[in-house]
Amino acid sequence: MRLTQLQIKNFRNLESVKLTPVQGVNLIVGDNASGKTSLLEAIYYLSHIRSFRTRYITDLIKRETSYLQLVANIETVESQIIPLGIRRSRNKSEVRVNKQPVKRVSDIAAQFPVLAIHPDSYKLITGSPSQRRQYLDWGVFHVEHGFFQSWQRFKKALMQRNAALKSKQKFDVCQLWNKEICKTADYIDQLRQQYFLKLLPYFQQLTNIFFLNDKVIIEYKRGWPADKSLFELLEANIQKERMKGFTYYGPHRAEITIKVNGQSAQTCISRGQQKTLVALMRLAQAMQFTEATNKTCVLLYDDLAAELDANHRKLILEVLSKMNIQLFLTAIEKDQIDLSAWQEKKMFHVEHGLLTETE
Amino acid sequence: MRLTQLQIKNFRNLESVKLTPVQGVNLIVGDNASGKTSLLEAIYYLSHIRSFRTRYITDLIKRETSYLQLVANIETVESQIIPLGIRRSRNKSEVRVNKQPVKRVSDIAAQFPVLAIHPDSYKLITGSPSQRRQYLDWGVFHVEHGFFQSWQRFKKALMQRNAALKSKQKFDVCQLWNKEICKTADYIDQLRQQYFLKLLPYFQQLTNIFFLNDKVIIEYKRGWPADKSLFELLEANIQKERMKGFTYYGPHRAEITIKVNGQSAQTCISRGQQKTLVALMRLAQAMQFTEATNKTCVLLYDDLAAELDANHRKLILEVLSKMNIQLFLTAIEKDQIDLSAWQEKKMFHVEHGLLTETE
Repeated sequence: MRLTQLQIKNFRNLESVKLTPVQGVNLIVGDNASGKTSLLEAIYYLSHIRSFRTRYITDLIKRETSYLQLVANIETVESQIIPLGIRRSRNKSEVRVNKQPVKRVSDIAAQFPVLAIHPDSYKLITGSPSQRRQYLDWGVFHVEHGFFQSWQRFKKALMQRNAALKSKQKFDVCQLWNKEICKTADYIDQLRQQYFLKLLPYFQQLTNIFFLNDKVIIEYKRGWPADKSLFELLEANIQKERMKGFTYYGPHRAEITIKVNGQSAQTCISRGQQKTLVALMRLAQAMQFTEATNKTCVLLYDDLAAELDANHRKLILEVLSKMNIQLFLTAIEKDQIDLSAWQEKKMFHVEHGLLTETE
Repeated sequence: MRLTQLQIKNFRNLESVKLTPVQGVNLIVGDNASGKTSLLEAIYYLSHIRSFRTRYITDLIKRETSYLQLVANIETVESQIIPLGIRRSRNKSEVRVNKQPVKRVSDIAAQFPVLAIHPDSYKLITGSPSQRRQYLDWGVFHVEHGFFQSWQRFKKALMQRNAALKSKQKFDVCQLWNKEICKTADYIDQLRQQYFLKLLPYFQQLTNIFFLNDKVIIEYKRGWPADKSLFELLEANIQKERMKGFTYYGPHRAEITIKVNGQSAQTCISRGQQKTLVALMRLAQAMQFTEATNKTCVLLYDDLAAELDANHRKLILEVLSKMNIQLFLTAIEKDQIDLSAWQEKKMFHVEHGLLTETE
């Protein structure tokens, strides 16, 4: 899948932007606050119906306008063109795939897989476990079709159980959902584990290149002890859980841990290393995705040059140029990024929210 | 005050580093994970007895060693040399000023005022209000000698009141601390307000240079409605507060709000703009400090080049070169930073935790 056309209207400082990107690399160059990141954010929004920068729609709709609109054409590997469209006002949202209205975010996400690496991405390492679960679930969702539904079922059951715990219902009422939770939990864990094992070789291959003298170990933890059954844990801990008002164990507590030379990557490596590691996690994911599905995906890489030294920058560009993805890069200065390894490339300049194609 | 000598032992990847900085600018150049940020972090630690990167001492003590040690000489404006020393193992901490042991962090902070701008600093804008209160309190602390003690008294009274609220004590027990809270609260608010008003012209002068076409407005909010008395609020809300278990109003809820063109700086401006704004907030603080106290302070500026365009970089360096501070800058590449405006300068290269002075 690749983005062949994009029209942006009233998105942040982008009043009216048209973009015809190439399949290879699209470099967007501009000064601070010109609109570089907003352009990537618009592409991300088209896939996720949410931003990587804000939770509030009012931040996204251009000031003194009443709605934002994104209209795009996506080309599948079979050269089929799928039109996508989003129109979002402060209190109404319309999403269309193939000119048909869709209700679920997952419907548009499935059509248009987009990954992003941006200045806040290092939170994938330093942030809460939920960020790392989302990372994992992106891959599972795009590869395993049963995942989304099971996850929805699990979430519903968990919500009901937690509500019963919080309102201090009798033990047997709290326990009502244990079976449903376990059924979906085991399946979710299985899919996550399978996906993680498929991801691992890609990640290891990359860390071998970038962390020459360091030992990087990434591990998946399912959210309950490896040697125990979830059902037994749910039954056994219900008294404690009723006190706290939430369910201790389950896939909603899953985690990925990353260690560099035996120390936690959360606090013991430099910012530059954290940024590199996050980039490698995403690249591994993009690689696995393209090889497992024979589809391509879109990778957004915001300000690749920031905080990376020349050697790491060169290595990252080398890896990117060999991947079968459509790439959108931003940079403050054009000579920060050497695009010579790409055949298909386009360069854009953005200034005060206006985009022009350049040489 | 300036740092004339620093010896670092077992701090992160810095096993043994000696540094003789100049009063002007000290540029530290190195690749990712070389130890640049750790060097700044060590200087910051010497002043704050905490890091700007981690809460855990085990992250700071070099692996396979049992303690870290920082020994420094500080020269006052009267050319007096004050030795500072910290030795910190996993469970013991010794801090010495002038060879005498000190117990309170504030004793060392008062001797050695250090400000830092680092990649996480943008959280001063996007993070919780407590970060902005800390920003304010740094300045009040270094200018107003009564502040620290009042703040300690306030915190103690607040803690007692909250404990009473949480344990659902009778109304009159909860109210016991209202008077003490109000007495210290009004004084704290007064000092903060005075400081904020002194800071404002510096900040406005800087934003006028950096945000040419944008209107930047910064406001101080004291933590309870401007037109109400804190005592009345404390008395009137005690029932609600007993339910929630904490005190709603007071200087512990103070806040600084920043708006750019009427929109919140937290979500509506670009990362580059946020970084610029944070830098200006710190520079304003350093300027006010040096002019109000006739002392100088130390400014640590980590990776100035990252995410700033050439124009902003140039402007920041221009402002810095005119300030009466001792400056420590880091950069990945030396040509990112033009030091020609400085008379007194030194350059260091750091690689795998080893520091060498270069030309």
